Amino acid sequence: MSVSTSSCAVAKQCLMAESGVEQIELLNAHDDIHGGVVVDMKDQPMDSEVFGSLLKASLSEWRQKEKKGVWIKLPIELSNLVHAAVQEGFTYHHAESDYLMLKRWLPETVDTLPANASHRVGIGAFIMNNKREVLVVQEINGRFKDTGVWKMPTGAVNEGEDICAAAVREVKEETGIEAEFVEILAFRQSHKSFFRKSDLFFVCMLKPQTFDIQEQNQEIAAAQWMPFEDYAAQPFVKQNKLFDYVAEICLAKTDEHYTGFTPLATTTSSGKASYLYFNHRDMGGLLTSDKQQ
Amino acid sequence: MSVSTSSCAVAKQCLMAESGVEQIELLNAHDDIHGGVVVDMKDQPMDSEVFGSLLKASLSEWRQKEKKGVWIKLPIELSNLVHAAVQEGFTYHHAESDYLMLKRWLPETVDTLPANASHRVGIGAFIMNNKREVLVVQEINGRFKDTGVWKMPTGAVNEGEDICAAAVREVKEETGIEAEFVEILAFRQSHKSFFRKSDLFFVCMLKPQTFDIQEQNQEIAAAQWMPFEDYAAQPFVKQNKLFDYVAEICLAKTDEHYTGFTPLATTTSSGKASYLYFNHRDMGGLLTSDKQQ
Repeated sequence: MSVSTSSCAVAKQCLMAESGVEQIELLNAHDDIHGGVVVDMKDQPMDSEVFGSLLKASLSEWRQKEKKGVWIKLPIELSNLVHAAVQEGFTYHHAESDYLMLKRWLPETVDTLPANASHRVGIGAFIMNNKREVLVVQEINGRFKDTGVWKMPTGAVNEGEDICAAAVREVKEETGIEAEFVEILAFRQSHKSFFRKSDLFFVCMLKPQTFDIQEQNQEIAAAQWMPFEDYAAQPFVKQNKLFDYVAEICLAKTDEHYTGFTPLATTTSSGKASYLYFNHRDMGGLLTSDKQQ
Repeated sequence: MSVSTSSCAVAKQCLMAESGVEQIELLNAHDDIHGGVVVDMKDQPMDSEVFGSLLKASLSEWRQKEKKGVWIKLPIELSNLVHAAVQEGFTYHHAESDYLMLKRWLPETVDTLPANASHRVGIGAFIMNNKREVLVVQEINGRFKDTGVWKMPTGAVNEGEDICAAAVREVKEETGIEAEFVEILAFRQSHKSFFRKSDLFFVCMLKPQTFDIQEQNQEIAAAQWMPFEDYAAQPFVKQNKLFDYVAEICLAKTDEHYTGFTPLATTTSSGKASYLYFNHRDMGGLLTSDKQQ
């Protein structure tokens, strides 16, 4: 087929072949700032064989142009194309409920594409009233089911959610108590907690603003205010070093000789709202002049 | 087909049909502790139509048994089965380079399956020698490319890697300097930093054990020891609140009136090795008696 170069669409490439000017079709794609290529898939249905041929031709083109990483984000509506991409040497990078991200590194050099998200983040909430009673719950499912253990409210920090906001939300969801975030007292990092993922768990101190417990969450079997000494004396807490340490730290905080990290609302270098957590007592001046909360 | 119940294999199920006892084939699966089912896929090739029929029959069976969440982990070698699973109502849960995890929630109730990993974790390393010079680098790629900005060594914490170990490793990789981990001075949480994922960035103080810089990493254009005042006076640092705050905190630490969080090696309730990070100065007794590092 002989066409003029001016008729080439975005997804088409004109090549000189022995027979003259030849036009081949390629996948729509744009360059990224790291020398790579991002394929622009639409939600519209595509036949997997057509996709496979386009991908093969495109890869050949990108190799000639010395492109590095190639990214294909396939909406779940195009799950019929996953196999064709894998057959062309792509591996999975990450997935969310509605899409799968595939990648391929073209050069001979070491793959420097960024890794998938590596950590889940959780919070535990330490909340005490003015009778030195701590807010505790029993869960319906999970490890502590039917053990009689009373534990502090805990939960997962959502993607896009601030740690301080997650702590306030979880307490409200599990017990109906309104509370104000005070401080991160400590945190724990552990590994292989969920498939291959690592885990960061932040122990947060909150100050209650209401006191009437209303179990609002289907995950909670019971909730109560419990004397701190009774909480800390539970065999489960005493026998478990991590829980025992955390109880000691909470007690030190209650007795006002412990300082954790407090959030300061600020912005990242690219202008995104962000919290910086640090020891505000030791940096009092900085917080006094700039606290934006 | 009429067979005796005793001949039913793991993947087979005997049902009373109008015509008598009928045997249907189901996918191999085992129960999880949350009332759900985990499908046991092998790496062996399977035809996608066969898989689709087995899955349909299995889903019908699991619904009758009132199962909740169904999990299918498909090795990348079985990418030909992804589409069939999606057609049976599965969505993606997460993916690693070599597998895709699919899930489906069967009851009418709210889906309580755990979320995918939500955060990437990074470190920045503050290292000063005894001339009050700080270790800084210039990067070959990324946002700071060709800007002339000198920044602290930074990098990603790998899945399964401790924050304190990641800081020591990155410094060694980028500059050849051997260093000892001292403390987490502060951390920042930001959102939508990488696709939809959130980001936790820990500013770590390390103590240098060697001083001769050897740029060993293909990501680094240059490295040097720089007077702290020159680092902090860079327009980029002064104009960026977050960098400016961090520089102030580092200076406070250098002048010995700031305490961050120090790691204590311990174990989780399920027996896994884990670090607890907290303000050790305020909890001196606990660290003195129990430090296991």
